[in-house]
Amino acid sequence: MSTVAVWLIILCLTVVAMVYIFWNYARIKQMPEGTAEMSELAGIIRSGAETFLKTEFKYIGIVLCAVAVIFCMVIEKTSGISFLIGGLMSSIVCILGMKSATYANVRTSNKARESLSIGETVKVALCGGSISGLAVQAFGMFGIILVLLLGEFCFDGGVSHVAESRGLLVNLVCNPTMMRISTYSLGCSIVAMFNRVAGGNYTKAADISSDILGKLRHDLPEDDSRIPNTIADFIGDNVNDIAGNCSDLLESFVATMSASIMIAVTLYQTHGENVADAAFNSTVLFPTILAGCGLVGCLIGLGLANIKKMGDNPSKELDLSTWISAGCTVVFGGVASYLIFNGKDINAADLATYGFKFGWASPWISSVMGIIAGIAIGIITEYHTSTDHKPTQKIAEMCTEGEAFVVTKGDAVGSRSVLLPVLVIIIALIVSGVICGSYGIAISALGMLAFVGATVSIDAFGPIADNAGGLAEACHLDPEVRKITDKLDAVGNTTAAIGKGFAIGSAAFATVSLIMAYVGNYTEIGKPLSLNFASFFVVAGGILGGALVEYFCAILTDNTIDAAKIMADVGDKQMTQ
Amino acid sequence: MSTVAVWLIILCLTVVAMVYIFWNYARIKQMPEGTAEMSELAGIIRSGAETFLKTEFKYIGIVLCAVAVIFCMVIEKTSGISFLIGGLMSSIVCILGMKSATYANVRTSNKARESLSIGETVKVALCGGSISGLAVQAFGMFGIILVLLLGEFCFDGGVSHVAESRGLLVNLVCNPTMMRISTYSLGCSIVAMFNRVAGGNYTKAADISSDILGKLRHDLPEDDSRIPNTIADFIGDNVNDIAGNCSDLLESFVATMSASIMIAVTLYQTHGENVADAAFNSTVLFPTILAGCGLVGCLIGLGLANIKKMGDNPSKELDLSTWISAGCTVVFGGVASYLIFNGKDINAADLATYGFKFGWASPWISSVMGIIAGIAIGIITEYHTSTDHKPTQKIAEMCTEGEAFVVTKGDAVGSRSVLLPVLVIIIALIVSGVICGSYGIAISALGMLAFVGATVSIDAFGPIADNAGGLAEACHLDPEVRKITDKLDAVGNTTAAIGKGFAIGSAAFATVSLIMAYVGNYTEIGKPLSLNFASFFVVAGGILGGALVEYFCAILTDNTIDAAKIMADVGDKQMTQ
Repeated sequence: MSTVAVWLIILCLTVVAMVYIFWNYARIKQMPEGTAEMSELAGIIRSGAETFLKTEFKYIGIVLCAVAVIFCMVIEKTSGISFLIGGLMSSIVCILGMKSATYANVRTSNKARESLSIGETVKVALCGGSISGLAVQAFGMFGIILVLLLGEFCFDGGVSHVAESRGLLVNLVCNPTMMRISTYSLGCSIVAMFNRVAGGNYTKAADISSDILGKLRHDLPEDDSRIPNTIADFIGDNVNDIAGNCSDLLESFVATMSASIMIAVTLYQTHGENVADAAFNSTVLFPTILAGCGLVGCLIGLGLANIKKMGDNPSKELDLSTWISAGCTVVFGGVASYLIFNGKDINAADLATYGFKFGWASPWISSVMGIIAGIAIGIITEYHTSTDHKPTQKIAEMCTEGEAFVVTKGDAVGSRSVLLPVLVIIIALIVSGVICGSYGIAISALGMLAFVGATVSIDAFGPIADNAGGLAEACHLDPEVRKITDKLDAVGNTTAAIGKGFAIGSAAFATVSLIMAYVGNYTEIGKPLSLNFASFFVVAGGILGGALVEYFCAILTDNTIDAAKIMADVGDKQMTQ
Repeated sequence: MSTVAVWLIILCLTVVAMVYIFWNYARIKQMPEGTAEMSELAGIIRSGAETFLKTEFKYIGIVLCAVAVIFCMVIEKTSGISFLIGGLMSSIVCILGMKSATYANVRTSNKARESLSIGETVKVALCGGSISGLAVQAFGMFGIILVLLLGEFCFDGGVSHVAESRGLLVNLVCNPTMMRISTYSLGCSIVAMFNRVAGGNYTKAADISSDILGKLRHDLPEDDSRIPNTIADFIGDNVNDIAGNCSDLLESFVATMSASIMIAVTLYQTHGENVADAAFNSTVLFPTILAGCGLVGCLIGLGLANIKKMGDNPSKELDLSTWISAGCTVVFGGVASYLIFNGKDINAADLATYGFKFGWASPWISSVMGIIAGIAIGIITEYHTSTDHKPTQKIAEMCTEGEAFVVTKGDAVGSRSVLLPVLVIIIALIVSGVICGSYGIAISALGMLAFVGATVSIDAFGPIADNAGGLAEACHLDPEVRKITDKLDAVGNTTAAIGKGFAIGSAAFATVSLIMAYVGNYTEIGKPLSLNFASFFVVAGGILGGALVEYFCAILTDNTIDAAKIMADVGDKQMTQ
């Protein structure tokens, strides 16, 4: 089958997923919102979140367009278009995720109110979350296939390691495929950065200010409806934990797909003389196919959750979805790897030249390493953040000794939780590197993110459940209802932490493969990849990078504090009027 | 002049410094301790600190001996001896620093009581601090010269790039000079690690527990003598901020000297065929000579402070000492560089082969870059930690909004303070690297630490002043006296922070040169140095290193919390009896 045919099939698959997404969206929207009070409050949250996104996207739009023009002029003439596609995909996912979450939150509390069943309530929240999750995966893949097909048919031809192109104004020679793929990825990243920074700032400021008003100044319980900032806090959950997290994981997912394709190109640049074209095509194709396998896996895992009757243990039900999605990805990925790397045009010697130690199975083993690492990180994060386990309980025990102990103990537990995920990443990194070279590392990272649809869905479950609990509290629903939403909320906090663990773990992996892709891009053909930390320029850059992260965080923290103070004062004025 | 003659001269210089140190020590000891209450309390602090060190050094001694034996057996037959010398030097400095500080603290408050003059009081505290500072420099240098001379006369000859040796049991070939120098440095490091970890744990636990008892449980002012843990807090200041800091900076100082010498050896391995022996000897000699220039500078700077009449602005007086010491180091370093790298045996072409862009002046310029960077980091740290400037004031402003704001704001200010020092380090790194290659970077690091005697003295002023203030408070001295000690205490907090900035800045620099020395050691002769971050093994190692730091910190934090809880409970029992 030709490369283009495969891409068209994957494109159709993403369209099928989109249909499923919109069907779920319509289904959620049709559900009843409950009492008039609930409906009103949910409406306020929804319109608040929309206002936030509208304001934010005004700026994002301007930045995207300006950067796109510069890219076309200076870098490569078509790269601005792919950059815009990236930005567009990320924006669609954010808006869709946020909208579905603000519909799902109130319907989740209403389902709890009507059914008084944990299982039924979990289904609504998860269905809402799955809209974000599947959107991340479907739109991320749709965009990259679009960019590849546009290159094939409208611009200068398909993926090639020899093609050359330049900007409209500046005459710097570059590889157009590489530029389009990396600018597509960058488009996703920029929207993610905006979402994370603006959304994060807003939500934390709202959270702090509502805590100050409630706990310090007016002695009211958390999420009490008399505190006006509580609503801002609800909105924050949606704009940051939903929209921000969606775009964040979309970025990692797209970056690893891009890096894998770019590494495939550099591999061929290094070994091309001794390797048949078929091997090149297979390595270029496999990343998108693996992502496709993951998408099918997620559709099965989340679809089953939609149909089946759920029990009273939400953690178990959510874990099951992840396991099914991951399991399907492993199986389908194996089949795909066999079909692609074991064709009649490819001989074992070519794969050996590429550094594949176990022939056709090498990329598959690498992807499985990534999948296992992803799940392991999830389990480790759950252990460190769930109320069922010792770490969180130990922090709680410190409360009797005053704030200083709680803060210090929390810090210690946080630092302690770092080691295991890192060991997992290292093992996955080394095994996939040894088995399948730098391509294997990229594929391993992609494996971790191949079922991103399921992980983001579970993750989005968190803020939806959080909002549902808040709404139940604010609308003074029956204690029985609140017991259910509280249960979901506690599980939701853990799933949100798992999502963060996943986002960070996959970002670490994505970074490694991006560094390799980048180094590969500027390394002379035939030379080994090298990023020399014994050069003082590289060391200086490394130190500077670390310091910039710190500095950037400091600016954000300052902004958050300032915003929280202003928000608390404004809320205070409203309360005392 | 022969290499050995130069070393002997430097050895004599360190002995002169030691005489000066012990003269000051005797002088401090002779001063009156004040009232019976003061004398009693100071005695308790002194004996407490001694008990701590005795307990600690029992373990250190066992570890040092065990490791030394292993080194002799497995690594290189003489390396255990140099390792023990390193440990011994560091231990002497710690004990001397701690002893002098516990004498100086009470004499400082008594001087404030008797003279009611800020200037006179500063002189006593600085004289106490200068004992630690000069000891760090003098003993650090004494040890390395001892190791070099032992190699020359007792073992297998002087510094050589071709010599080979092996362990008594294991037959791994290595360069004996390299091994002796690096194990000497490691000996210093191990004692520093013990001091930092055990001392830091103890002092923070004492600090927290005394705060809990005072502020939370019994509503008493800080440092009140009714809280038994206050004394533990006083002891902690001495064991951590004096002994810990001394050994920490000794380690950095020794590590940079060692790295410079090792890089000189690798340079000759790379370029030896085209370079005369004289160039090799000069590069090996310059590090110890530069340190000698710094030692003379410190003796002048601190000696002047001992003689002159001091005004009422402690910051100014302390800064002056640093400036004089640094200025002298610059001038003497320039003369030394001219004499060593401009001799009749050395021709300009040899230096050019070594990558020296400005002939004999290149190492000197590199060292000046380091000195400027050190002073700049000091100024930046002072800005961020002194009560006279905006950053600290802004944190104080947050107090009205509750603890969460103070913690968050403090975190933000801390993160913000990182950027400038890093930029300073980067500039110094790149300039010295361009001008003088990897040797230049090592020399630049050494330049920053060449007047370590002065910086540690100013730094040790901090805990002495802190203790003096605490003693004045605990012994209910006149408010006029406490005004003086409070002033010194505030300045002391800043100088302690400057010392930490220095320790960390120089550690960053030392690390870069150590990495280069290490990479140089295992790189094949004639090949360029390379530490490849595009290799997944290196990346995996890098990530693991980061995680281990976090994990290690978590263990320490946990220990500190547990210890603080126990200490608070024990103290509470004593108070309520």
